Amino acid sequence: MYQITVCLTSEQFPYYQTENCNAVAIDVLRATTSICTAFLNGAKEVIPISTVDELKTYIGTEYLIAAERDGVKLDFADIGNSPQYFTRERVEGRTIAYSTTNGTHTINLAAQCHSAAIGAFINISALCRWLEAGDRDVFLLCAGWKGRFSLEDSVFAGAVAQKLMDTGKFTTICDSALAAMDLWSLAKPDLKGYIQKAAQNERLRKIHAADAIPYCHELDLTDVVPVFRDGVLRGMST
Amino acid sequence: MYQITVCLTSEQFPYYQTENCNAVAIDVLRATTSICTAFLNGAKEVIPISTVDELKTYIGTEYLIAAERDGVKLDFADIGNSPQYFTRERVEGRTIAYSTTNGTHTINLAAQCHSAAIGAFINISALCRWLEAGDRDVFLLCAGWKGRFSLEDSVFAGAVAQKLMDTGKFTTICDSALAAMDLWSLAKPDLKGYIQKAAQNERLRKIHAADAIPYCHELDLTDVVPVFRDGVLRGMST
Repeated sequence: MYQITVCLTSEQFPYYQTENCNAVAIDVLRATTSICTAFLNGAKEVIPISTVDELKTYIGTEYLIAAERDGVKLDFADIGNSPQYFTRERVEGRTIAYSTTNGTHTINLAAQCHSAAIGAFINISALCRWLEAGDRDVFLLCAGWKGRFSLEDSVFAGAVAQKLMDTGKFTTICDSALAAMDLWSLAKPDLKGYIQKAAQNERLRKIHAADAIPYCHELDLTDVVPVFRDGVLRGMST
Repeated sequence: MYQITVCLTSEQFPYYQTENCNAVAIDVLRATTSICTAFLNGAKEVIPISTVDELKTYIGTEYLIAAERDGVKLDFADIGNSPQYFTRERVEGRTIAYSTTNGTHTINLAAQCHSAAIGAFINISALCRWLEAGDRDVFLLCAGWKGRFSLEDSVFAGAVAQKLMDTGKFTTICDSALAAMDLWSLAKPDLKGYIQKAAQNERLRKIHAADAIPYCHELDLTDVVPVFRDGVLRGMST
């Protein structure tokens, strides 16, 4: 039996032993949903970049720059961080230099594990197949929000944990995995209704970006799992 | 309306603005339950001490020394950290120098807020009366376990948050408060049954301290709220 561990915020990463795990970076609203959308629409690669200074070195290159801070598109970026910007017209065949407040930092932490993928509701079943085929312990790393717990990331982690438990090949002794599965059990009958109360929804409403919220809670729009290798995310079909 | 915030681990304390809040330190298994038991049985004062070195300065004084690390009584301590050690015979009229792995650190963080009290299931209704009378925002600080989420502390925080919400004087925009209340809604019908799965139970079983678990999930055994002032906890009846 493989172990499932859920880390509720990226800042708690140092408290876990994760070297031998297959990790999943989770930032449902909106980074990891946007990255999955980019691959759904034919993007070639995504390069997750933590700092604005590093991102600026991509200005004037062939890369598409997608970036936000505190939810708002950076002025030098080509597009912001909502999944609706990652249209086929914009992203097909392109490499995207990508940076967000919480999401890219989380991805770069997950990359320290044995292997790392990108998870969102829109690729959840494909992601779970990838994890099941991986034959290793699983580490689900929620971005959270500035060091704090975020409801949508945790509910998603619970959904993944429950799907893995249901295969009979996984178990858990992790309190945050148990709690996340319990939250998922409450959210599952009406995910979009349940998640209305999440603080991130209000933050997105304030910056007029709330139209992304329902899309970010659709299930299984794509079979592509973005997997991290050598500093780059590439899409794997499962 | 006053705001309720839940911080799921003491290590996340720096991510919150808490100066104007009434805070509650929460370490259900076992520190905060033991401290409430001490006052239930007539203790005069409890001095929470973070480091072993500082605690050693109390050896040979009139103080009763209660201390554990990783669940096990320190060899120079008079008693360990299970509530059953805090009998009336041992603690009545005494001042207790107290130190545990997670609990005392959490209390000393909570003490940085406007005011701080000790919460456990055994004093939950009295605690909520104290918070309601406090006429301020409330900050519920879970100890967690070595930087990780702990189920019993979070469920307790959810129970307190729900009781405060039910008064009509409090509200919340905090995702961890919302999640904690949802976990409490699942746990409430059978708290002792629900909490069986918590990782701390298994840790206590391994050190033969599991007999404290049911007691730590009894409701309202005492009306005393331990409140922190000038470096010392004293019992307040509500």
